[in-house]
Amino acid sequence: MIQKQNNTLVSKRLEALRRLMKEKGIDYYYITTADYHNSEYADDYFKEREFMSGFTGSNGNLLIEQERAGLWTDGRYFIQAEQELLGSGITLFKMAEPGVPTTKEYLKEHLKEGQTLALDGRTITAAFGQELEKLAAENKGNLVYEIDLVEEIWEERPERKANPVFALPEDICGKNVEEKLSMVRKKMEEKQADNLVLSKLDDIMWLFNIRGGDVECNPVALSYAVITKEHSYLFLQKKAITQEFISWVKTQPLEVREYEEIKEFLKETKFSGKVLVDGANLSYTLYKLIQEKNEIILSDNPTEILKARKNPMELEQMRKVYLKDSLVVCRFMKWLKDNIGSLPMTEVSAAEYMDNLRRQTEGFLDLSFPTICGYQENAAMMHYQATKENHKKLEAKGMLLIDCGGQYLGGTTDVTRTYALGEVSQEMKTHFTAVVMGMLRLLKGKFLYGCSGRNLDILARGPLWDMGIDYKCGTGHGIGYILNVHEGPQNVRWKYLEGMKEAVLEEGMVLSNEPGVYIGGSHGIRIENIMVTKKEECNNDGQFMGFECLTFAPIDLDLIDTSIMEKRDIQNLNEYHRQVVEKISPLMTEEERVWLREVCREIG
Amino acid sequence: MIQKQNNTLVSKRLEALRRLMKEKGIDYYYITTADYHNSEYADDYFKEREFMSGFTGSNGNLLIEQERAGLWTDGRYFIQAEQELLGSGITLFKMAEPGVPTTKEYLKEHLKEGQTLALDGRTITAAFGQELEKLAAENKGNLVYEIDLVEEIWEERPERKANPVFALPEDICGKNVEEKLSMVRKKMEEKQADNLVLSKLDDIMWLFNIRGGDVECNPVALSYAVITKEHSYLFLQKKAITQEFISWVKTQPLEVREYEEIKEFLKETKFSGKVLVDGANLSYTLYKLIQEKNEIILSDNPTEILKARKNPMELEQMRKVYLKDSLVVCRFMKWLKDNIGSLPMTEVSAAEYMDNLRRQTEGFLDLSFPTICGYQENAAMMHYQATKENHKKLEAKGMLLIDCGGQYLGGTTDVTRTYALGEVSQEMKTHFTAVVMGMLRLLKGKFLYGCSGRNLDILARGPLWDMGIDYKCGTGHGIGYILNVHEGPQNVRWKYLEGMKEAVLEEGMVLSNEPGVYIGGSHGIRIENIMVTKKEECNNDGQFMGFECLTFAPIDLDLIDTSIMEKRDIQNLNEYHRQVVEKISPLMTEEERVWLREVCREIG
Repeated sequence: MIQKQNNTLVSKRLEALRRLMKEKGIDYYYITTADYHNSEYADDYFKEREFMSGFTGSNGNLLIEQERAGLWTDGRYFIQAEQELLGSGITLFKMAEPGVPTTKEYLKEHLKEGQTLALDGRTITAAFGQELEKLAAENKGNLVYEIDLVEEIWEERPERKANPVFALPEDICGKNVEEKLSMVRKKMEEKQADNLVLSKLDDIMWLFNIRGGDVECNPVALSYAVITKEHSYLFLQKKAITQEFISWVKTQPLEVREYEEIKEFLKETKFSGKVLVDGANLSYTLYKLIQEKNEIILSDNPTEILKARKNPMELEQMRKVYLKDSLVVCRFMKWLKDNIGSLPMTEVSAAEYMDNLRRQTEGFLDLSFPTICGYQENAAMMHYQATKENHKKLEAKGMLLIDCGGQYLGGTTDVTRTYALGEVSQEMKTHFTAVVMGMLRLLKGKFLYGCSGRNLDILARGPLWDMGIDYKCGTGHGIGYILNVHEGPQNVRWKYLEGMKEAVLEEGMVLSNEPGVYIGGSHGIRIENIMVTKKEECNNDGQFMGFECLTFAPIDLDLIDTSIMEKRDIQNLNEYHRQVVEKISPLMTEEERVWLREVCREIG
Repeated sequence: MIQKQNNTLVSKRLEALRRLMKEKGIDYYYITTADYHNSEYADDYFKEREFMSGFTGSNGNLLIEQERAGLWTDGRYFIQAEQELLGSGITLFKMAEPGVPTTKEYLKEHLKEGQTLALDGRTITAAFGQELEKLAAENKGNLVYEIDLVEEIWEERPERKANPVFALPEDICGKNVEEKLSMVRKKMEEKQADNLVLSKLDDIMWLFNIRGGDVECNPVALSYAVITKEHSYLFLQKKAITQEFISWVKTQPLEVREYEEIKEFLKETKFSGKVLVDGANLSYTLYKLIQEKNEIILSDNPTEILKARKNPMELEQMRKVYLKDSLVVCRFMKWLKDNIGSLPMTEVSAAEYMDNLRRQTEGFLDLSFPTICGYQENAAMMHYQATKENHKKLEAKGMLLIDCGGQYLGGTTDVTRTYALGEVSQEMKTHFTAVVMGMLRLLKGKFLYGCSGRNLDILARGPLWDMGIDYKCGTGHGIGYILNVHEGPQNVRWKYLEGMKEAVLEEGMVLSNEPGVYIGGSHGIRIENIMVTKKEECNNDGQFMGFECLTFAPIDLDLIDTSIMEKRDIQNLNEYHRQVVEKISPLMTEEERVWLREVCREIG
């Protein structure tokens, strides 16, 4: 992560950029938070928006004018953004709040005839580019997209990562490259496409059974892929290719090209037949290149749904990995509860303790995201990051939230627990108990095939809504297999903003289940289990579906108030804890086992 | 209702029609079940499909060729249609069954180059007409839509209804016509439309604060309306207009024209500006007329959402009417429970008893739909209609389902209760209890503004899904104000089929809440309360919403099994019954009061 900027620096950078804008006749310069692949995490090289605004959150769009600048971010970051933008002269636009225009609405209103909006077309999607194109045309303005002004003023810009790319052992993939290519080509045929251009990194990794290390915590390599009826091309950075990889490629139905060549390749290629691209992921720049000579079919990447439905081998691997990872969480909890008040601890050292336990686990590759460890009011910031300079000491009171996960050879994990470190208020217990009730109700949910997360969200959110409390995020996201900790199209939400995908929950889809309570300035609670969608009975009324739990880590009974729980909630919790003991005990020492039985004791 | 045809008659009619088809060069003649306004119930005059096929169900499309004829209907009517079509030579196409083509798919396959498909364009929507137009063009066939062949052979066609149209007392409308017109014009402006053509009868009634009696159980008059920026025209049948109505019209900002003149009017008018029409409701014939000379905006009728959000006066009236109507249901229950086994009763006589209680109620205008009264396995048919010829006797055992409602000066009601008439099985109790739990959970549901029924459906359906049971319909529909018992756009469903509307639940929207269990050949259960969407607290997390209950009638405790209920479910039921006693007792005799307190006793 780039270090937090102070706002004198930000002001100077804005000044320099505004000078360039003036020179080039640009009235609006738009910077978003994205690499050229619409990855969720932009690596340091791509953090132009952070560099220009000082706002370090993972989601934000910056729009710079001569007299004004605005930053748009979502509910997770309102508090953080207000702090980080202080004194920068940048106005905060709170996404999705009533009366707050979107960036597009803002531009629609302000972009005047003859004015120019500029941006780096590699960092926005084809879909968004098309919308801006339309908007500019309607307002009789111009859209310039082959430009990167920040590059010109960012002197110490980090290098672009190019870590070694490697093939996964075929026996943990479930399907080989040839099988996957044929699945993808079948989907292409269904969509009447003859060619496919992929730029979404996890889709490319999934398709070729390879992994890399170019995006923080995501084991993906910067790459592109082109699939025709006969050939498949994989574009990789030269520096990322090892001798071992070259040998492996020779055994596979694919041809490797240099990463930067994609533009040349697309410029020169007149494909035979139509080209399928995912306008929500392919960059606007590449889209425009393909569009020049080819008929385009806009559709989801056919890889997306195939990747989302984990195959039996992937699920088998994940089950094993989640047991190991749950053991890590159990051990952390024991250490924390045993030592709080006697050992000095901070948010940072606690996170390090957790990360180290994971690092020592067999098959560990990397963290799946930077561990979030927030004590007391810091936990109210959903994506809080404690730093060496700025963190809280842990004391034997209040609550600690820890959200963490690993990349293992065998799966990607993600888990959140909130622990009492000593005395807690009744309000905290009430909130915690409601969160646990919601998490378990969703986990135990039974529903007819055809439901999406929209139908189910209220199972988790209901106990909080009943109290007049909401959490400003979805309840669950899809999770990759040795891949991104956030993956689509599946999710659990009650509300879908523009561009969000809503998918029918299918057998084998893996989802997080993470309701929470976030009381600014006071406390934050989140409990997150990971679960797999599975089939239940099929009868005259249809195919019923449910979830299998993958995460087995105790839920802190010190924070449970049974008086607000229903009979079924208590049963759910006891049943879950019985499973934790059953699954994790065998991996533990005798001392740990005794402890685990105690923290998982039956309540009533 | 038209009497059941015998199939010699049907064959003769088909013969006559085929003769006409030959004369006019028509290869396919399509007859659907609709009036010219896409009303839910077609009045006898419009029952051409029933006349031509002998099939009396409320949903069915008939396609006639020289050598073949096919009738399409849905799952509710498969058995009935098979019986009624016997010997007619008409093939039954079971809608939505695997492998069965839709009418459109059938035509797509069979309509050959140069062939002609004909239909009465007044009976199909603009949207469907456009689809057929496209289909015909693609197949290089012709579509003829200004024709009504059945009219030529239907000698004893019933007269078109033209009951007196009347103005509602202004003090129960909440808004006068001028206010409503200005609300509608504001919405038109938002949609950039200068004119509006309305054909949906309940929308027209709402807009002009009038009612009629031309559609069974719907207090609507056959009519059209045209709203321009300056003028508003109401097209009514001459026979429906009374002297009193003429006097009233003089005081209103509207001009009355003759119903049949609408075609002439649209043919001659070149509107200034664009014309808004609802393609899902306006007839294809009128759509084509408007389209000839005007630019059309296809959108929902702006009246629809305005009508759906009941104003405070309408709600005040409805609250009063629902108390009176709930008293009817209480009295029916007492009569039923007191007399079952001693008085002879049938499904028909029980329904008559209920209907008579309603008829004697102050302000009663009509039933809001034909009462559904199903005993034992008959209740498993959702839209079962007992007839004088075909019904069950009631005995002192099993369950009776009764679904009924009234049109009153002050509101439209709809309520369903299921009663034990004596001994019932444990399975019935389990099913009944789950239905009640679901109904009350939805009624007590609290949710953030922005939710639609899709988000909430699982509250009602969940207890059944948990048992692996589903009901094959939505959980709730919108309800009109002295208008149609089914109205949009609001509803509660988990799944939306093509063409179904999904609306954010807004303050003042009235909805039914009617989960059920339908076990074919055994029993049927439905409990239906009506509720109003209301605002709850508004805090930093947003505007919370909930429901106010309008229906106050006991839920039969003889069918409740508390062992499967959560604490909260028991509280919900006790709280509901306390409200029933509180609201309805004051309207009762002392004897009734004692009885009510007993059937609403607290359980635990």
